[in-house]
Formats: sequence, C-alpha cells, structure tokens
Amino acid sequence: MRTVEWNYDTNKFHMIDQRLLPGEFKVAIFDDYRDVAQAITDMVVRGAPAIGAAAAFALVLAAQQSKAVDYASMHADLESAANDLKQARPTAVNLAWALDRILFKTAHIKSSPDDIRKALLSEAQKIADEDVEINQRMARHGAELIDDGDTVIHHCNTGALATVDWGTALGVIRMAHQQGKKIHVLVDETRPRLQGARLTAWELTRYGISFDIISDNAAGYFLRTGQVQKCFVGSDRTAANGDVANKIGTYMLALAAYDNGVPFYPVVPTSTVDLTLSSGAEIPIEERDPSEVLGLTFQGASAHPEGASARNPAFDITPNRLVTAIVTENGLVYPPYDTNLIKAVRSENER
Amino acid sequence: MRTVEWNYDTNKFHMIDQRLLPGEFKVAIFDDYRDVAQAITDMVVRGAPAIGAAAAFALVLAAQQSKAVDYASMHADLESAANDLKQARPTAVNLAWALDRILFKTAHIKSSPDDIRKALLSEAQKIADEDVEINQRMARHGAELIDDGDTVIHHCNTGALATVDWGTALGVIRMAHQQGKKIHVLVDETRPRLQGARLTAWELTRYGISFDIISDNAAGYFLRTGQVQKCFVGSDRTAANGDVANKIGTYMLALAAYDNGVPFYPVVPTSTVDLTLSSGAEIPIEERDPSEVLGLTFQGASAHPEGASARNPAFDITPNRLVTAIVTENGLVYPPYDTNLIKAVRSENER
Repeated sequence: MRTVEWNYDTNKFHMIDQRLLPGEFKVAIFDDYRDVAQAITDMVVRGAPAIGAAAAFALVLAAQQSKAVDYASMHADLESAANDLKQARPTAVNLAWALDRILFKTAHIKSSPDDIRKALLSEAQKIADEDVEINQRMARHGAELIDDGDTVIHHCNTGALATVDWGTALGVIRMAHQQGKKIHVLVDETRPRLQGARLTAWELTRYGISFDIISDNAAGYFLRTGQVQKCFVGSDRTAANGDVANKIGTYMLALAAYDNGVPFYPVVPTSTVDLTLSSGAEIPIEERDPSEVLGLTFQGASAHPEGASARNPAFDITPNRLVTAIVTENGLVYPPYDTNLIKAVRSENER
Repeated sequence: MRTVEWNYDTNKFHMIDQRLLPGEFKVAIFDDYRDVAQAITDMVVRGAPAIGAAAAFALVLAAQQSKAVDYASMHADLESAANDLKQARPTAVNLAWALDRILFKTAHIKSSPDDIRKALLSEAQKIADEDVEINQRMARHGAELIDDGDTVIHHCNTGALATVDWGTALGVIRMAHQQGKKIHVLVDETRPRLQGARLTAWELTRYGISFDIISDNAAGYFLRTGQVQKCFVGSDRTAANGDVANKIGTYMLALAAYDNGVPFYPVVPTSTVDLTLSSGAEIPIEERDPSEVLGLTFQGASAHPEGASARNPAFDITPNRLVTAIVTENGLVYPPYDTNLIKAVRSENER
C-alpha cells in the first residue's frame, strides 16, 4: 500500500503509522479530519510530500463531515478546516501548498455540496498520484549524479514513507540501484526521532540496497576520510534563493560535505519550493516537545538525570552556498539559485 | 570520591562505573590489572585523563600481582603489563603517557621488588593528584574566556568523571560558575554512548549549573541562530600542529562554530599533546562495536530493522584551522600552533 491512501470502499483515509516502524506495520484509519491534523502533529505521518497529500485527503474528510446544504457554507467549512490543518506543523510548506491547491481547484464549484465533495476527492487523488510520478521523474534526474560504486550519506527518511510512494532523496538512490549501479548508503540515524535508523534502514532492507547505520556525529569522520562520494537529503521547504529547510542536522552535514569537497544534493519537488520567501531566514522552525530528546534509555536505564530539560528544534536551514545542485522533477538546478530555481518551478507550472 | 582512586586500606583500586550513571552510582573494585584493561576497553572509565590515571594504578596492581623476586624480573613484568594496558584503547594518548611516565620514573630502582611497588604507587598517586591540580589551573585560564551570561555548547563528558577529579572543558565551565558568572550549557547528548546526556547532565545537575540537553544534530541550529557564544570540548590526543582528536562529532561541531564566528576551544592538559605526531592524520581512530549504535529503542521497540549493520568510529579529527585557541594548564595557546603548542608543553616539562 501507499504511505497515504484513500479507501474507495469505505470512504475512509488510510495511513501507515510510522511511529511503530520498523517493529510493527500498522495502518491507521481516519474518518475525521481533526484526527488527521493530530496525526500530522504526532508524526504518525511525516515527510513534506506525504504530509501534503495527507492534508488534501483530510480536507475530503472535512467535506464528508460538513453538514452544509449549499455550496457557500461548504466552501466556508472547507476554508475553516484547511486553517485547522495548516496549524498541524509549521515548517513543511507542502501542507499549505496542497490545501491551497485543492481549495483553489474547487472554489469555482457553485452547485451541490456533493459536487464539491467529488471534486475534492478527485483533486486529492490527483495530488497523490502526481507525487509518485514527480518522485520518479526526480529520481531519474538525480540518478544521473550517482556513479557505480558510490557511497552516499543520507539524512532522515525521504523514501516511500516520506511521500505518497517512491521517495525523494531515497528515491534517487533507489533509482540508481534499479539501474544496476552498485551503491552503499551511510544512514544517518537522525536523532531525536531516529527516522534514519528506523525508517530509511527499513526501506533499504526491503529494496535490497547495502547500508550501514551511523550516528549523526560520525558523518564528518566518513566525509573527511574520503569514504563518501555524495550526500542526498530531502527538504521540508526551500526558499527562492535555494536555502533549504530540512530535518535538524542537515546543516552540519552540509558543512562537512562542503569542507571536504563532497557534493551535497537536496532532492526537492517544486511543491516544496516557497517562492514567497527570499531566504531561509524567513522559514519558521518548529520546536517540538523535549521528551523526544529525553526519551532515550542506555543499557536499560534512563539516559539522562531526573529533572533534566532539553531543547528540540526539528529543522535547520542549510544556506545555498553549501548546496551543489538541487534535484527537481524538472531537472537539476545549479547556482545561481535566485534565478534558476524560479525557472524550474515555473517550468512545472506551465506544463 | 574521585573517579579513579587507590584504596590504601585494602590496597585495591576503585573506579566509579560510568556505564551505570545517571541511574546508579556504583564503585567497581579491582585487584587485577587485566580487569582494569578490560574496564578501560568496556568504558567503565573513559575520558583521556581518567584513563591515564587508571592505567597508572593498574600498573601498581600488576606489581602486586607479580611474583618477581628480583628487580629485573619485576621490571620485565611491568613492561609486559604496560604493553597489555596500552592495547585497551588506541586513541587517547594519556594511556601511553601515564604508563611511560611511571615506568620511566621507576626504571632506575635496582633494589627489592617491594621498593618498586612502593615507588609505583607513589608515582601513580602523583599522576592522579597532579591531574586534579592541572585541571584547576586549566580551568582558571579557560574561565577568563567566559563572559557573564554566556551560553556555551559542550560535547561529550569532560568533567570530574572524565578525569581524576574536576574536569577539563567542563572544569572551565565549573570554574566560571564558581566565579559567579551566569552560564547556560547546551549539552550535546553525544551519540552513540550519550556521555553528554548521561554524565555531563548529571554533573551539571550536581553543580547547580543551568543546562539543556540537545541532540547533536541541533548544535548547528543554535550556533546559526546566534544563541551560543562559545564552544568548549576536551581532547583525547592533540597533534603537534594543533589538530585535535576528540569524541566523534567534535569536527562537525567545530565546523558549525567556525561557520558562525563562534569561538571553539579545546581544553587540553599538556599530557594529551602528542608532539611525536606532526598532524591529526597520524592519530589512530578507534572503531568500536556496532552494537553501540544499534542498541537504541524508540517508544519501546528496537530503533532499527532486524539484521541492520552499523559503523561506529569513536573519535574524529578537528583540523587546527577551526580551533580558536587551546586551553592548557600553562595558559591559552593561540595559532600558529606549530610553534606555540610545543612551547606550552615544554613550559610544563620545565616546571
């Protein structure tokens, strides 16, 4: 199944509960859009593209739940539900992008609420299907960057689980593997939530791609000792100048890659580019609950003294000067990003 | 009690078992030098200065265990025990430094084995006592670098637990706190063994110093957003050119500090400087068991898929160009380290 999926038999929304992986594969079923918003906050689903599609399907649930009897009150209900959903997580732009797109595409409908419900589902499904198609296009562009025998570092999870299916940065690695290139992945475990160790390692095992998990701290060592040829990461929001917001730790990885002349490639569907922001400094950074940092055990006992406090920013900004090229579904984008990124995004919009 | 301590009543050697902290405070008791070697390998004790003193006391145990009836065979037994002990961990130079010093200081004794035993204990005790004195001298030099109100990042554990007592980098922070300066510490949790979250947070709680634990990934975010004024780290071995081997992740922290103009200070007793090595490239890097990376749970379940493999280098090299100054017991050492570090070391030897 896909990471996020509409069930046409039951008219309910299904998502893989990613908090339970790799130990347990469980599908969570939703019929209330507010539960989807909470699930996004709680990271049942995560990854910018997956969050976008989940929000779109949540809006379909909101339409089902709405008791509106005319199109105007239905549109008002949807507007209100979309506002709720946008609060679920602040950094990934795909959440707002998907909701704005689906509202825009259905705003003209001035017939029955049921017509709006049908149009919403059709557009949400289109967003989901396009995500898979876009990921595979990105993967083909990105795979050109991978040489046979490469060892690459990958941060967080950007695979099928971070998207509707296939993946962004991990999708590139997967495509290179499918093309018969020998590739080894050093998987940043990605503290605090360990998406690398839990989810990326799980996906790589399924795809039969060779990997080792490393502590995030070790990436610099492997880069400096010449054991890594490329780095691939995702993005939760990319500003117009090519500054990349991504999972916490990406910035330090980019610094270490740059310091050793190793190419650093964010893999970014154009839906993740926010042209309204001139630089990464404008991207809001979510700070999550300290319990995510403090929840560790070491050899069976708590890994911190009682009463310890923690800070937990979930993302950081990698400045464009550290970015070798950005992989999009419309091709590779090289500096200067100020001018070249907007071209890549517009080329998508003109399709 | 001290982290490593000779018990004169029982003639046994005591160490705090650091693997059990912060949950349990337990003292491990040794009467066999081979058990101390194993305890160093297993990280019952860790931290370059503490390892050095532990090795010195272990040699006292070896002398007690020796059945030598003349000085020549006693010296031979000690030589052999020292060679065993030096294998316990490869990166920290203090292990070899302490053993070479204690052997050198007792090599001239050509009377009874008991005379050698007494001299060994006296010299081991001297190494331990000097460590505390040196740490406090370093702390006074380093504390000059800290301003009232500073937030500092600290990596791994370099406190009383990493030394005989008081600490190196954490000793500097402790001294500034004692001097009445308000200071807040961002504690890198320090994967994979979490010495920051477990040991540094435990020490800071006891000293009453304000802190937050952060995932190692988050250091870059706090540096880039202007929330940090200085970084303090320890060192397991420093080459003659000022390249610093320290706990894995130090290099990436140094890069992030440098990228944001935040001073980066290794706190390094001169016993940790290895003038025989012209650069950090010559420092051997220990790779430890993958189980240290893989041993995590996430929300009660294993944090990696079954059969996953890992790589686990324990140290990395921070090049001297990223080092603002090195704090030693003989004062602050600024670039060029090639010439200035040797002066600081010799100034110690001439005391």
